[in-house]
Amino acid sequence: MTSVAPKSAEPGPSQRAAKPHPLDSVFSPKSVAVAGVTPTPGTVPFDIFYNILTSGYRGTVYPVAPGKRSICAVKAYRYVLDIEEDVDQAVIVFPANVVDRAIQQCGQKGIKSVIVISAGFREVGPKGRQREERLKDICREYNISMVGPNCLGVINTDPEVQLNASFARKMPEAGRIAFLSQSGALCTAVLDYAREKRIGFSKFVSFGNKAGVTEIELFDYLHQDPQTDVILLYLEELRDGRGLIEAARRVTRGENAKPILAIKSGRTPQGADAASSHTGSLAGEDMICDAVFREAGIIRVVSIEQMFNSAIMYAYQPMPADDRLAIVTNAGGPGVMATDAAVSVGLSIPRFNPATTAKLKEALPETANIKNPVDVIGDARADRYNAAVAAVLEDPNVDQALVILTPQSMTDIDAIARGICQVHKTAAKPIACSFMGAADVGSGIHLLQAAHIPHYILPEWACEAMADVQRIRRWREQPIGDIERLPVDRAAAGAILDAAPEGYLTEDQGLAVLKAYGLPVPRHMLCTNADEAVAFAEQIGYPVVLRAISSQIVHKSELKAVALNLDSADAVRGAFERMRRHMAETVPEIDLHGLLVRRMIPDGYEIILGGKRDPSFGPTVMFGLGGIYVALFKDVTFGLAPLDRHTAARMVRQVKASQLLEGARGGARADIEGIEQSLVRVGQLVGDFDRISELDINPLIAGPANVGNMVADVRIRLSERN
Amino acid sequence: MTSVAPKSAEPGPSQRAAKPHPLDSVFSPKSVAVAGVTPTPGTVPFDIFYNILTSGYRGTVYPVAPGKRSICAVKAYRYVLDIEEDVDQAVIVFPANVVDRAIQQCGQKGIKSVIVISAGFREVGPKGRQREERLKDICREYNISMVGPNCLGVINTDPEVQLNASFARKMPEAGRIAFLSQSGALCTAVLDYAREKRIGFSKFVSFGNKAGVTEIELFDYLHQDPQTDVILLYLEELRDGRGLIEAARRVTRGENAKPILAIKSGRTPQGADAASSHTGSLAGEDMICDAVFREAGIIRVVSIEQMFNSAIMYAYQPMPADDRLAIVTNAGGPGVMATDAAVSVGLSIPRFNPATTAKLKEALPETANIKNPVDVIGDARADRYNAAVAAVLEDPNVDQALVILTPQSMTDIDAIARGICQVHKTAAKPIACSFMGAADVGSGIHLLQAAHIPHYILPEWACEAMADVQRIRRWREQPIGDIERLPVDRAAAGAILDAAPEGYLTEDQGLAVLKAYGLPVPRHMLCTNADEAVAFAEQIGYPVVLRAISSQIVHKSELKAVALNLDSADAVRGAFERMRRHMAETVPEIDLHGLLVRRMIPDGYEIILGGKRDPSFGPTVMFGLGGIYVALFKDVTFGLAPLDRHTAARMVRQVKASQLLEGARGGARADIEGIEQSLVRVGQLVGDFDRISELDINPLIAGPANVGNMVADVRIRLSERN
Repeated sequence: MTSVAPKSAEPGPSQRAAKPHPLDSVFSPKSVAVAGVTPTPGTVPFDIFYNILTSGYRGTVYPVAPGKRSICAVKAYRYVLDIEEDVDQAVIVFPANVVDRAIQQCGQKGIKSVIVISAGFREVGPKGRQREERLKDICREYNISMVGPNCLGVINTDPEVQLNASFARKMPEAGRIAFLSQSGALCTAVLDYAREKRIGFSKFVSFGNKAGVTEIELFDYLHQDPQTDVILLYLEELRDGRGLIEAARRVTRGENAKPILAIKSGRTPQGADAASSHTGSLAGEDMICDAVFREAGIIRVVSIEQMFNSAIMYAYQPMPADDRLAIVTNAGGPGVMATDAAVSVGLSIPRFNPATTAKLKEALPETANIKNPVDVIGDARADRYNAAVAAVLEDPNVDQALVILTPQSMTDIDAIARGICQVHKTAAKPIACSFMGAADVGSGIHLLQAAHIPHYILPEWACEAMADVQRIRRWREQPIGDIERLPVDRAAAGAILDAAPEGYLTEDQGLAVLKAYGLPVPRHMLCTNADEAVAFAEQIGYPVVLRAISSQIVHKSELKAVALNLDSADAVRGAFERMRRHMAETVPEIDLHGLLVRRMIPDGYEIILGGKRDPSFGPTVMFGLGGIYVALFKDVTFGLAPLDRHTAARMVRQVKASQLLEGARGGARADIEGIEQSLVRVGQLVGDFDRISELDINPLIAGPANVGNMVADVRIRLSERN
Repeated sequence: MTSVAPKSAEPGPSQRAAKPHPLDSVFSPKSVAVAGVTPTPGTVPFDIFYNILTSGYRGTVYPVAPGKRSICAVKAYRYVLDIEEDVDQAVIVFPANVVDRAIQQCGQKGIKSVIVISAGFREVGPKGRQREERLKDICREYNISMVGPNCLGVINTDPEVQLNASFARKMPEAGRIAFLSQSGALCTAVLDYAREKRIGFSKFVSFGNKAGVTEIELFDYLHQDPQTDVILLYLEELRDGRGLIEAARRVTRGENAKPILAIKSGRTPQGADAASSHTGSLAGEDMICDAVFREAGIIRVVSIEQMFNSAIMYAYQPMPADDRLAIVTNAGGPGVMATDAAVSVGLSIPRFNPATTAKLKEALPETANIKNPVDVIGDARADRYNAAVAAVLEDPNVDQALVILTPQSMTDIDAIARGICQVHKTAAKPIACSFMGAADVGSGIHLLQAAHIPHYILPEWACEAMADVQRIRRWREQPIGDIERLPVDRAAAGAILDAAPEGYLTEDQGLAVLKAYGLPVPRHMLCTNADEAVAFAEQIGYPVVLRAISSQIVHKSELKAVALNLDSADAVRGAFERMRRHMAETVPEIDLHGLLVRRMIPDGYEIILGGKRDPSFGPTVMFGLGGIYVALFKDVTFGLAPLDRHTAARMVRQVKASQLLEGARGGARADIEGIEQSLVRVGQLVGDFDRISELDINPLIAGPANVGNMVADVRIRLSERN
């Protein structure tokens, strides 16, 4: 198996011609210099050169090894500048302190890309960080694409290139999966792991400290790469989260869509700590990362196993029409476990149509179970498997099949594997297999793997992989609109924000900003005496609420700075005086701007709408239902600001408690469209103004559809003025 | 590796002498007859005999093969009765229709145990079920222990027995793990899988239809078995859930405690369907199974992988004192992923003490990370690993270590493995390893496996296994009291229940039953006219509630059969008349017993206490907080009735929302001890009366500790009278 033909007869992406791309010199250089080669096998500086020389590279490789005449019988050079011909790429393995000079010479030589293997930069502290900045400057000056530093290198299995510019021990098989990793060490494990499972790669990139080329440019390159069908990414540090998301959205949808499966480690605070002491990265909130990856079409996985399990399912099999799974097994127990697993991950187990049932009845013994999961019984041989697999795949209620085998005494394992390969050749639906065991089923597994039928030792893993493919499918199908700007009074909001210092806006300022952005704000007035308050209350109608306003008050309830349900002029007057007196007595130092009067908002669902500037992703929007239970269960979701209306609609539905808004438990249906619009408006607001570091509408009271929603409280926190 | 010595120098369970047990004849027969042998290799009837003959069995095996003189050169018999010597066990491979006669002869011969491999019984429908009943009768008559029918057989690796009375292709290695499975087919896969991982077994039992010996007797046998340290169970059908739980509690706690790890498949409704069409079993509610297994010390796992991963961690390593994990890695990325995984499963990542930090600083290069997770850096060789692993294991803040290795060019994998084996010899704390990759790390992994250091391809799995060991540890340490009966008026409750027909009790009857069992029931009175109601209200004090009572009303709110917050005689009188009129107009057919008057219960936390008869487990108790959110998040738990008070206390804490009861979100602390007592009382009630099929106290209003709890509504449903 050296290359993988796509199953479909349609011209696939691999048939399309590649367009020129800025990273071509990284992946497909016509000539490569290895700068810093030493003559000692088993050291990185030697191994890299040796790997390029012996991996079948179609271009020319030059060793740069000051003081040596030749390396492995190949003429060596003192400097890259001494090389007689043009050179496209240099792989740099010099010690950290001379890498800058080496790159400088590469620039002078006209080299377009460098892969800096050497460590001793950003990851070792301030001095290394300085060195790294210097490399960036030089690359910028000479317009050089740099991979690394502190990386394993780059591999391109394209038969027309065959470049192993890495210190990985062996070249991987060719395949349609690209793997990108911030951790070089992980790459060595992944290559070893993949070899055993006969998983091939199109490109394999360790990008290390990503001082130059990052995952974002790599996404763009791989999107166009005709050899790549699916992109895998291991990431520790989100330096430009927003750029990553935008690039991912371009890659994962549309005509030439390719899925991205990613591990972002540092999921837990402790893991993030470990990652930051290792890469010096800033940790954002993991729940935001989770939600935002989902909205960028990045399938977030938690382990290498899950990543490859899902990648081969996608890369080797056609896209299923839906989530209906047929299971064929020779063992009841594993059939039950697979059914449990399938249902747990969201696949469905359809009933067969009568024609299928008839076919199964005909082909299988009486003791067989002809319902889904089909049990062909322990003594089944290839004929029964063939008949059952073919029958279920032909059923219009079935979108994909999982074939389970346990090695029993009658089981002709290889013949069954060959039969499945045969059925697979003409099937338009995906097939996965789980031959359970190890040595006994080994040769059968090899037959399946050679035919690119995804194989999993456990049926549970097959189900998880199929579920990930469903996530890919649903992401492609779900609508994403353009970001439409809703009409707002940006100038009015800007005037308030520009005038305010760092810290919290007062409530009346906050309400004014929300009002400028079209959020449903109750009529209100900041009153400095009881007469004013009563007059305004008479105008808007009872009952009303009084709230003390001061830039020094953030949590009103602690200071008794709120009076609710005032239903007459007397009540307003009384509360006004009492509150003013109370404030004067308990917190005389506070600069009280006045008391805000507004209508009491009728009962409804309590909603939280938030905005927050994430260190990686920039402005984000948060949605959840209010109340203690929801906080307990962390039932909230996030989106990137600004939001389109489809994303806002999805956010509302991602929250479990939002079933209540639909009237699930006998309540009235809320004005969900209004909530969605408010989300879009909050996104527009935090997207427009960098200084808003936090925004909390808590709660927005969501009434029934005919009443609508109303902001009951807001806090907006500003960062320092630039 | 043929046998496994326990690490500890203390005399372990294996040194203890075995007591005689009724199942000895199943596992350690002195002589075995195989009844129904045929001379054709590759068929079950031949293979079984051949396996016993060639697996090194220390007793005598007799083929019973009517019409044959010998099988494999061993003298054959026409009937078991023809065998000249005494026979302890018969393995029966005759076709289903003659098995009864064969067992009859076994009985006459004085055989003590039969293993019925033959299929064609319960699993094929009513006719098979009849056949199976017949086998049971014969076994009962002759006092024969029967394993099966419809099973793979029994294996005992004890060097003094060495019996492979199964049609598994090869005898497994000896080890300290016992595996019990209801699915025979799964066994073949498990044996193959375990062989590759060099996992050995003490006993291996496929118990099939469990017409005779069930998992319950097997637990008892294995509890005493000096060769077994840990018991694994695959179960599809819970026939006697309560018996299982009671047996498991005896095995998993106390002096000779052995953990039980179990897969119970049919977790989802679809899986349960598949299992029942396969075994004809009754499905209980899976959440109950989950909770009840937990309270029986059964570690429920979901896959074969998890089962063995955890089993070897427990069986091969000492029990850690606590959950603090040190990680040593040569690759930052996997170190971060492992930290994430560890924290996610509930392990902690401690800081090292200064002595450890000093040792690490001394032994490792400057660029290494000497905090937990320790990164010995990509070019580390055995010396660095040795120093780091030894140092972290000596740290008093560390309970166990995980060693991660990725195969980099300098990595001397085998030397590192040998070093870890060396450290392991003297370490009193558990070590697990993850050498990531496949072929490159293969020989290192073999070295670890041979030394019984648990190895996992992914660090995530090592963490899951360690977390399961923590579950075992915590279970052993947690208190379980005896069931103490609280004083109740059983006769009063019994009088009401005995008199009532099938269906729901009326509310006043329900309250009376609860009152008899000491639950906090509000004072109440069933009134048939307004004067009576007013008089009673005056007596108990306002505000009061009116509730219409009829055996035909189950959901009162739909019928406007409730009036709340009545705060005067007039209000009571008015509501009484209105409700009676309303009922007469809208549901004139209803037999209205009267209106129940009781005090309005002040606000508090809404608690649900339930009781339910589960088809497998019998009477169970349910606990949860009320309200729509909790229902949405399924935040409830179950226990077996009757409950001891420690279990009741744990149940309350298992529910996430119960943090609120502790006053977590600024509320008052509830009377939690009162709630626990109410749970014990509900358990006593549903345990005492078989006819209670469902009981729902919804809600119990839990006030602050100084106010206490009060039942606000109850529904009790009775099954038919016997």
